Amino acid sequence: MKLGKIATLCNGKLNGNPDAEITSFGNLVNPKKGEIIYIISPDYLEKAGLTDAEAIIVPEGTGKSKKPTIEVKNPRLAFASVVELFAPEPKPEAAIHNTAVIGKNCKISENVHIGPYAVISDNCAIGENSIIEAHSFLGKDVRIGAGCRIFPRVTIYYNCVLGNNVRIHSGVVIGSDGFGYEKDGAAYRKIPQVGNVVIEDNVELGANVTIDRATLGSTRIKNGTKIDNLVMIAHNVEVGKNTLIISQVGIAGSSKVGDNCILAGQVGVGNYAVIEDNVTVGAQCGIPMKKRLRSNEVYLGSPVRKIKEMAEIFALEGMLPRFFSKFKRLRKDMDELKSQIETDIREKDKD
Amino acid sequence: MKLGKIATLCNGKLNGNPDAEITSFGNLVNPKKGEIIYIISPDYLEKAGLTDAEAIIVPEGTGKSKKPTIEVKNPRLAFASVVELFAPEPKPEAAIHNTAVIGKNCKISENVHIGPYAVISDNCAIGENSIIEAHSFLGKDVRIGAGCRIFPRVTIYYNCVLGNNVRIHSGVVIGSDGFGYEKDGAAYRKIPQVGNVVIEDNVELGANVTIDRATLGSTRIKNGTKIDNLVMIAHNVEVGKNTLIISQVGIAGSSKVGDNCILAGQVGVGNYAVIEDNVTVGAQCGIPMKKRLRSNEVYLGSPVRKIKEMAEIFALEGMLPRFFSKFKRLRKDMDELKSQIETDIREKDKD
Amino acid sequence: MKLGKIATLCNGKLNGNPDAEITSFGNLVNPKKGEIIYIISPDYLEKAGLTDAEAIIVPEGTGKSKKPTIEVKNPRLAFASVVELFAPEPKPEAAIHNTAVIGKNCKISENVHIGPYAVISDNCAIGENSIIEAHSFLGKDVRIGAGCRIFPRVTIYYNCVLGNNVRIHSGVVIGSDGFGYEKDGAAYRKIPQVGNVVIEDNVELGANVTIDRATLGSTRIKNGTKIDNLVMIAHNVEVGKNTLIISQVGIAGSSKVGDNCILAGQVGVGNYAVIEDNVTVGAQCGIPMKKRLRSNEVYLGSPVRKIKEMAEIFALEGMLPRFFSKFKRLRKDMDELKSQIETDIREKDKD
Repeated sequence: MKLGKIATLCNGKLNGNPDAEITSFGNLVNPKKGEIIYIISPDYLEKAGLTDAEAIIVPEGTGKSKKPTIEVKNPRLAFASVVELFAPEPKPEAAIHNTAVIGKNCKISENVHIGPYAVISDNCAIGENSIIEAHSFLGKDVRIGAGCRIFPRVTIYYNCVLGNNVRIHSGVVIGSDGFGYEKDGAAYRKIPQVGNVVIEDNVELGANVTIDRATLGSTRIKNGTKIDNLVMIAHNVEVGKNTLIISQVGIAGSSKVGDNCILAGQVGVGNYAVIEDNVTVGAQCGIPMKKRLRSNEVYLGSPVRKIKEMAEIFALEGMLPRFFSKFKRLRKDMDELKSQIETDIREKDKD
Repeated sequence: MKLGKIATLCNGKLNGNPDAEITSFGNLVNPKKGEIIYIISPDYLEKAGLTDAEAIIVPEGTGKSKKPTIEVKNPRLAFASVVELFAPEPKPEAAIHNTAVIGKNCKISENVHIGPYAVISDNCAIGENSIIEAHSFLGKDVRIGAGCRIFPRVTIYYNCVLGNNVRIHSGVVIGSDGFGYEKDGAAYRKIPQVGNVVIEDNVELGANVTIDRATLGSTRIKNGTKIDNLVMIAHNVEVGKNTLIISQVGIAGSSKVGDNCILAGQVGVGNYAVIEDNVTVGAQCGIPMKKRLRSNEVYLGSPVRKIKEMAEIFALEGMLPRFFSKFKRLRKDMDELKSQIETDIREKDKD
Repeated sequence: MKLGKIATLCNGKLNGNPDAEITSFGNLVNPKKGEIIYIISPDYLEKAGLTDAEAIIVPEGTGKSKKPTIEVKNPRLAFASVVELFAPEPKPEAAIHNTAVIGKNCKISENVHIGPYAVISDNCAIGENSIIEAHSFLGKDVRIGAGCRIFPRVTIYYNCVLGNNVRIHSGVVIGSDGFGYEKDGAAYRKIPQVGNVVIEDNVELGANVTIDRATLGSTRIKNGTKIDNLVMIAHNVEVGKNTLIISQVGIAGSSKVGDNCILAGQVGVGNYAVIEDNVTVGAQCGIPMKKRLRSNEVYLGSPVRKIKEMAEIFALEGMLPRFFSKFKRLRKDMDELKSQIETDIREKDKD
């Protein structure tokens, strides 16, 4: 692949020979000849120049190098395009495997892959160019949009709905029952969970994520949100657009998460909590039931506090041992002073 | 469906026309004509009366409304019955799919569903009216009672036992090896895990739960306990009756959880801990190894403390920044006082 | 089985009749006649002697008992051998089930089991004596060594590599995409994840574990490491040799964990953190991004501190309520003292 073509693909400005041959992409640590690499700051230009890399994708305004450079607005995005060019994701062919079990009244669009041993129940609809891989299971009346990829071993319970360009990794369960019971004497009786799950366009769900169906209505994940492995989303939760939810987060029933939020790993969100737009929640935070996190704020701790307050508390906790000694010292000073004063008074009295 | 029939089904007292037609159930927020809704307190009666709902299920002793009401002991339970009436859970038909692989010497009772691509190993027993859905796997000698529902993609390892009316959601793994190793030089050697898992009657397990088999003996979940998604129960744990374990809880080896407990989301229970009956443990609590939580108490924090104590500590942590300033002020006051007294003394000495 | 043979198997010294018949292994709590049990300390010898057990495995140097004993270096390891003898793990026969789907150009070695409905994609290699159970899925170009056991319902994405004697429990997902996105206007664009996962020899992965493929290069789990259920390992993580990772731990992208470490349950490790060799991290610890934990240390808390420091902080937190009262008392003493002194001065002034 000619370097000039790559510059065009990246929508970048080439400094160097457009006919240079690029054979692959490489890693800043140890690239080989023929490989193109990227740097996210001009600070790394010198280091990158000393490697065997063939060319370097650099941020706009980066200075000159001995090696050819492509100046772009966002080197990570440009590099992503290069990686997709040289290492496209393997995709199964658009065909229905002869072992797939497909129910009655299903609408399977053009150019769809259905893998070995997939089971599609009655009345399902699958949009064009979608891929349903091996051992996946769709319950009755499931609707899947166009351009989706459902990796092997995914379960989607009845009535759930996926938009377009949704990616669901292996082991995901969508539409299992919400956790709702009511005491009936000594035992719990199940509250029927008859809502569904709606996953909007461009959402990606990591491996072994679980999203429960709503009691009534829908549990909903909105456009462009990305969810990492082993996350739990409970019934009737609503997650906004373009939000990132990192691994092992748990969001309890009826909570709302806004647009453009980031929930870091292992965060726990209590029932009926509200996280407004543009909120960042640090790893392992605990958000109490019904708590509201204000937009554009960053939070830490369990229970959560605003980052400035919590960071100070964390620091002060570290100072507690020294502080307790200081306090004892002060108490002692006080007691000595009091007894000294009492002695003074007694002596004066003698006078 | 006539309103009178619904009142009978709910075992409730009807105020209004028994011949009113109810077409479905609705939501308090925005019900449609023909729908029946419920309120859990008379406080909501006025609001409910202003909606388009056809009728309202209310707690006993609630006053009159313009709309027909059904007075019941527990409106949530009554409404559950109504929901089951109008939206019964879809169930696959009682039949064995021709792609199911069934081993030797299996006892499959009457009226059982075995779904596509399910694999039942040798010597399994499945009780009547049970449902084993697509892609589920039962190891050798697994016994499953009557009226169970095993959703798609569940794995039950050899020798494990399920009672009656057990519901297991998709992705669950029952009977995987307990985590037991012993150092043998530099490396770890595996301690064989030859016990099993016993799940008693009326238990429900959420999606992607894992329950490990005992080293010797049984890991046991007792009658009526409900376990939410992504919970981990380690080897030789015993969970009592009618206990709720919320999502992402982890219970380490050989711990005991009593009857009627609630473990909120993301709680971690250390090895050999004991949680007595009727204990509530707050979200994200950490229960140290061998710790015993006393019956009828509520706990918070990591490491856990009784709720009153821990709530006070959480509050005081929040006051630490102000407290440190106050302390500095006191230290300064003390130093000034001491120096003032010294000055006094010196002056007196001069006198 | 003669007791003499068992002593030989355990490499132990028999005190008693080598012709005694042992029919099984038992539990210290309630062993039956014919069963052999073990104790890990001479302290339990008397108790063990009072049971119905036929013989006792004891640590070297334990005194005499009325019952036959076998003295060994490590009773747990010896007992493990006995358990394997009497209760060998059931293994499916070395055969390829006629429903397994096997792609083109696969190299399946001798003595391999491939279970019902397993799907092996093109160009996979499986070493001898390996077992791939029902419903497991291998993507293209997956290589699996000899003596592995892949339990039912495991997904291994394309290009991933397993060494020899690797055990993977049900529900595990290896090689799903790392969680990498870059803002492109309002939306996130996916960073291609084109690396793989390498699992070295003698690793065991518990049920429903997820390990993501590297962005570039490999996510790697080294020789002899054991990972418990529901653990999440992110892209480009490297875990050393003979390390134990307990249930529900999450390790974020590009972190490094050393050899011989122990990460207790629900620990969270931030991006680019480094845990050196021989480190123990307590349950529910939080390790901040880029933090380095020093070798041979034990850590507690979130955020983590060295155990001695953190244990003191936990204790002091418990003392905060009493401490706040003490402080108020001191403040009051101070104020009284000051006012007393002022009174004195005023009186002196009057004089």
